[in-house]
Amino acid sequence: MRILILGGDGFCGWPTSLKLASEGHDITIIDNLSRRLIDNELQSNSLTNIYTIEERLNAAKKQNWKIDFFNFDIKNYKKLIEIITLTRPDTIIHFAEQRSAPYSMISEKQRRYTVDNNVNSTHNILNAIVDINKNIHLIHLGSMGVYGYSADFGKIPNGYLDININSTQKNVEILYPTNPGSIYHMSKSLDQILFQYYNKNWGLKITDLHQGIVWGVQTKQTKADPILVNRFDYDGIYGTVLNRFITQAATENDITVYGNGGQKRAFIHIEDTVKCIQIACENVPKKANRVRIFNQVSEVRSVKELAEMCVKIYGGKIKYVDNPRNELANNELEVDNSSLKKLGFNPISLSKNLTDEVLFIAKELKSNLKPENILTSAKWC
Amino acid sequence: MRILILGGDGFCGWPTSLKLASEGHDITIIDNLSRRLIDNELQSNSLTNIYTIEERLNAAKKQNWKIDFFNFDIKNYKKLIEIITLTRPDTIIHFAEQRSAPYSMISEKQRRYTVDNNVNSTHNILNAIVDINKNIHLIHLGSMGVYGYSADFGKIPNGYLDININSTQKNVEILYPTNPGSIYHMSKSLDQILFQYYNKNWGLKITDLHQGIVWGVQTKQTKADPILVNRFDYDGIYGTVLNRFITQAATENDITVYGNGGQKRAFIHIEDTVKCIQIACENVPKKANRVRIFNQVSEVRSVKELAEMCVKIYGGKIKYVDNPRNELANNELEVDNSSLKKLGFNPISLSKNLTDEVLFIAKELKSNLKPENILTSAKWC
Repeated sequence: MRILILGGDGFCGWPTSLKLASEGHDITIIDNLSRRLIDNELQSNSLTNIYTIEERLNAAKKQNWKIDFFNFDIKNYKKLIEIITLTRPDTIIHFAEQRSAPYSMISEKQRRYTVDNNVNSTHNILNAIVDINKNIHLIHLGSMGVYGYSADFGKIPNGYLDININSTQKNVEILYPTNPGSIYHMSKSLDQILFQYYNKNWGLKITDLHQGIVWGVQTKQTKADPILVNRFDYDGIYGTVLNRFITQAATENDITVYGNGGQKRAFIHIEDTVKCIQIACENVPKKANRVRIFNQVSEVRSVKELAEMCVKIYGGKIKYVDNPRNELANNELEVDNSSLKKLGFNPISLSKNLTDEVLFIAKELKSNLKPENILTSAKWC
Repeated sequence: MRILILGGDGFCGWPTSLKLASEGHDITIIDNLSRRLIDNELQSNSLTNIYTIEERLNAAKKQNWKIDFFNFDIKNYKKLIEIITLTRPDTIIHFAEQRSAPYSMISEKQRRYTVDNNVNSTHNILNAIVDINKNIHLIHLGSMGVYGYSADFGKIPNGYLDININSTQKNVEILYPTNPGSIYHMSKSLDQILFQYYNKNWGLKITDLHQGIVWGVQTKQTKADPILVNRFDYDGIYGTVLNRFITQAATENDITVYGNGGQKRAFIHIEDTVKCIQIACENVPKKANRVRIFNQVSEVRSVKELAEMCVKIYGGKIKYVDNPRNELANNELEVDNSSLKKLGFNPISLSKNLTDEVLFIAKELKSNLKPENILTSAKWC
């Protein structure tokens, strides 16, 4: 398959590019390296020593993995059209969005950047597909955070909810009513509306992967050469909750839980992320009468449970801090991930794999950790 | 009240500005005059001879109506902040969006402009309110077109739908599941998600007015001086369906119906538009635990019915043409407009007021009509 990967230099994009290249697909990455620039803006860093994109591509070449690269912002529509016309992809995978909830809540600048960047990037891709080849399969990284956490709605289905309209007593299936928890998550809710309309009016084939919180750092392919190492964020802005806990455990610091830790969330290991995306790629949706939505999730845990799991393995203690986020203190959560499982997804469980991650991180971080960055989350309001 | 009107030079914005100024409110208009520029792009025109904004403001001044004006694009956030800080509005009314469905379907340029302009304009206003004064009441012109036309959902409520979740048997109220019919309507669906989140996270007071298709041209205030005349679009891109029929009737041309005319739509006269907006302004929502949504609609008619009404009054005949839009050939539609009625809205009915409009238009259009512009709608796909 010819696959175009937008945002292929990032935390999920890079290991996905390697995985799909290693499976024999022809990969082209478009990335404006914005995530590297945000490191400068925030004075944050990856704990792992990530290499330049040129060094990464050379190392991939040594593995005989075919990856081309173009450096530009896909808000440049003319250039986007040019590269899609040139590379004639069967599939486009879209990671090219600002992906941190805390970053999106810092101030108006980041709020407005997140919405402008994410909406216009997604909309440009949809327009390009309409104009060049309506048969291209678009895969988008959505988020479990679009669903919200109301127990009224039961186990979270794969994107669509069966309801009965009270006034007419009719049974219908609707796009799950969105209830995002941050500007970032809201931008994924906006994407959903774009997908719904472009599918309805032009019949585009779209898969939206509502992903849980990603943890871990390495995949089989990023381990193939030290130069291919993935980035690992541990700071309060870009570090996801479990990766922050892993960093704290590995450095023998207190594990800081927001609020009482009663928030249940869905998680997935980075190795599972790339596997699920491969599954979505290689199983093109046949019917295009609606957007295909999968919950890309391995398991559900409460934040407190995660913290306790870390303490149990590595010792140390939990410290409860004020929650900077505007979210429910406690919530129930059950997620249906059967659609991806039916296509061959076999989730990696947290309890069995936590040890490896911490050992790897403990080795890497000696010189790179800036402890002052661990508690830097923006306040929601 | 101090009221800031964004897009106050347009078809709905201008008569609203005059109406609220005539009621004694302090009005400030921000407009970049983009609608006048689109006339150049499309080689279209208003049938009425509209005056420059400077001439309009001078004529308003002669009526002792207080209207200030700033010419800039509200995508310029810095300038927007400056003017809101300067004018300290109690209320902001937001018309500053590209508002034609056919325009939004012409090609990628117009699709991308509509989404970029409408989303970022709305998002900038929300950000400015968060940053300057969270107590400002924001009134937005939404559209009935966000609802879609499924009979399964019954009479369209004021924005929120009562449902029962099949899996849990819980009764909940949700934002009506959106099903827009064009890129333009989709942009209003995106706005809804922005409003929902800004209301949830910052408690902003927001009224979203889901308006029917506006017809007519003059209001009491635009009649006060010929220089205050409102614009009247009759072309296939910006002319709304009934205004196109009125133009055809007044010029003794066939009345062109898209498809079989079985599409039922909600309508409102421009005089009712300004009245409803006044009501929304002067009745600030007390609870800010959700966005207030009103259906701003006078009555529901099928397109065929409208055409027959015009023929009955003025003679001539109906011509059925291929429908350029991707929409249901026939649909049922019932709309709840009781919320605005409870606050004093007394709708103007079509059947009683059609004659005046046609006489006015017939007088104006002799020299201005470009017949080739009547059937210029974009094709949906």
